[in-house]
Amino acid sequence: MTDLRQEALDYHALPIPGKISVELTKPAETSYDLSLAYSPGVAEPVRAIAENPDDVYKYTGKGNTVAVVTNGTAILGLGNLGPMAAKPVMEGKALLFKRFAGINSFDIEVKHKTTEDFIDTVANIADSFGGINLEDIKAPECFIIEKALIERCKVPVFHDDQHGTAIVTAAGLLNALDVQGKNIKEADIVCMGAGAAAIACMDLLIKCGAQREKIYMLDTKGVIHTRRDDLNEYKRSFANNTDKRTLEDVIDGADVFVGVSGPDVLSAEHVKMMAPKPVIFACSNPDPEIKPELALSARDDVIIATGRSDYPNQVNNVLCFPFIFRGALDVRARTINDEMKVACVHAIRELAKEPVPQEVLAASGVSELTFGKEYIIPKPMDSRLCGRVARAVAIAAVESGVAALDLPANYMK
Amino acid sequence: MTDLRQEALDYHALPIPGKISVELTKPAETSYDLSLAYSPGVAEPVRAIAENPDDVYKYTGKGNTVAVVTNGTAILGLGNLGPMAAKPVMEGKALLFKRFAGINSFDIEVKHKTTEDFIDTVANIADSFGGINLEDIKAPECFIIEKALIERCKVPVFHDDQHGTAIVTAAGLLNALDVQGKNIKEADIVCMGAGAAAIACMDLLIKCGAQREKIYMLDTKGVIHTRRDDLNEYKRSFANNTDKRTLEDVIDGADVFVGVSGPDVLSAEHVKMMAPKPVIFACSNPDPEIKPELALSARDDVIIATGRSDYPNQVNNVLCFPFIFRGALDVRARTINDEMKVACVHAIRELAKEPVPQEVLAASGVSELTFGKEYIIPKPMDSRLCGRVARAVAIAAVESGVAALDLPANYMK
Repeated sequence: MTDLRQEALDYHALPIPGKISVELTKPAETSYDLSLAYSPGVAEPVRAIAENPDDVYKYTGKGNTVAVVTNGTAILGLGNLGPMAAKPVMEGKALLFKRFAGINSFDIEVKHKTTEDFIDTVANIADSFGGINLEDIKAPECFIIEKALIERCKVPVFHDDQHGTAIVTAAGLLNALDVQGKNIKEADIVCMGAGAAAIACMDLLIKCGAQREKIYMLDTKGVIHTRRDDLNEYKRSFANNTDKRTLEDVIDGADVFVGVSGPDVLSAEHVKMMAPKPVIFACSNPDPEIKPELALSARDDVIIATGRSDYPNQVNNVLCFPFIFRGALDVRARTINDEMKVACVHAIRELAKEPVPQEVLAASGVSELTFGKEYIIPKPMDSRLCGRVARAVAIAAVESGVAALDLPANYMK
Repeated sequence: MTDLRQEALDYHALPIPGKISVELTKPAETSYDLSLAYSPGVAEPVRAIAENPDDVYKYTGKGNTVAVVTNGTAILGLGNLGPMAAKPVMEGKALLFKRFAGINSFDIEVKHKTTEDFIDTVANIADSFGGINLEDIKAPECFIIEKALIERCKVPVFHDDQHGTAIVTAAGLLNALDVQGKNIKEADIVCMGAGAAAIACMDLLIKCGAQREKIYMLDTKGVIHTRRDDLNEYKRSFANNTDKRTLEDVIDGADVFVGVSGPDVLSAEHVKMMAPKPVIFACSNPDPEIKPELALSARDDVIIATGRSDYPNQVNNVLCFPFIFRGALDVRARTINDEMKVACVHAIRELAKEPVPQEVLAASGVSELTFGKEYIIPKPMDSRLCGRVARAVAIAAVESGVAALDLPANYMK
């Protein structure tokens, strides 16, 4: 076991188990304090909410609370280890919501028999929160679950493994194409992997201009094409009318490779076969589809991004999920729609093109960051993200008509 | 609206809505911190828990977390106002768990169709927590729900409106009988009300020595007797083989009156009819079954307790629920059994008989507290409660064989 592994266990165990707590935000020292917080004073907000349901946002923490919900069927890259094994990840997500966006978040691990049972459970408790972040749920159930919960819940429901990954990937990829002088509309795209994240990534890239017929998606059986009869409805929507069957067939001349699959599936030879000035997003974590040093040794005109913090261009969901919920909560959006997701993509993109303040360089532990091959995505420690991204999302929510509130005064430019 | 009412609304609304937040207990400033708290470090506790399920208590906050769960069908004395109107009360309970016993607690409001639906929902999410505190659920569904959840959940499930009320009432009542020189085994007891709290109180009093045939329970139709055919199974267990039909019939010569019903149902004339040295627990809140000044004007040999903080002898659940969970969590009890409840009763009783330190007098805003007619129950602000009650509960859990852990070293005398 390496030092990092033991450090991680100690971090979780010492001095107290876990990493989040519940604390009081109001005085609760005296009998008088408690007569306001609980009986008899608490009867007043109860009556107010009974008369006017929206008052729950005025007198309780609902409007700044997000539940992180899982069934533990696809934990990180570790697979289906059950709800309890997922708890450290879910508490970690709650920690990130607070750390990056000031959102109170706690974790719900759901044990269930059927997918319908899971949906019922989450729908029944959803009103307790201002939003629901679904996490680490395997495909294709995650698609069914997310769709049903969006329909049944009055608060935003967002499956981060799909849309958070898709948003950050799209932001980085569009910037990388800018650097390479290419246009997403003309790009030939290879997507290695056909799970939840892969499908969400390709869906969002299409909304950002990619052409469906120029996308080649591969699952474990090779290219997903129109003559296959083993496809679920989600994969089927990416079936390409092509004679190409293998990675070798499709990587030849491709502009973009997006890997959301597993380690080391892309070789130096594959990289050499790509079009001039290619873009590679090798997002399998911790071991990418190709190591950056190998890709860069194959050719020097490539831009490569990974999920790792120890290489340039890290694709990290934390650039998105705290802030898309921050924006949604602040205008009380009833859903997180495509307009908000695309606004999020562009806000992240734009930040990477701006000069980086000294404080952000220091927090990120680097001496220079200039938009280009090694800096196409903002750093997670960039404290400008929250304001920029949340505002863009909030504006998109208001303009697309899903917000119950107007844009807050502090969000106005 | 009185000042207290507006103060209570302001307390809940300003400067931020609600009264609890989620905070970090571990460092999360640097990239390195986050690599331990989340990816890639978090994979280590995930793997550990997958291999050894008990490690969830080592690496997550589960063991110090209690969910406060309701469906809003019996909110305080206000009735069935729905899950959202209950949220301020549930957040208040969470605040009290933290304030009095250091337990992280958050609220889950459940929307549901059937009772079975509610049970399934709570059972499905229960493993996320170290315990479940049920709250503000109407009778008789609360009995069905509690029983089913105790059977289905691996963590303690406790309906505070039943058992918290019963424990504090029993503690005070047994002490009041001591002061009056009476024995619970010979006491004629009138119980006004036949809801969840009433039934739990009488059940627990029987476990503490009361004789079932000396208990007269009344619902809205009068005395519950064996010839009535309109009784649910819970009331039926208290059907008395008697010819007495009215409050007047049963209050005549009674030693004890326990009111868990509504305001002003007991008159001065009723009090005069009771046996010498009677005990009255008028627990309807905020308006008791009889005002203390009226009872004391009727006769001066009476001991009266209420739910109110502005009279002596306040029956307040906060004397019990934070500490019974503290004790249960600290030895990882799989349930809260009768032994633990009775231990809780006696720990609360004993504390009231001890000298009260100056600091406790000051915190309680009184100059003297001596065991007797006006001090039969400890004050909520008595900081000795947590240690005493939690220890007694923990010892009872270990001795009755429901604890997974031995008594912690700091609990040893």
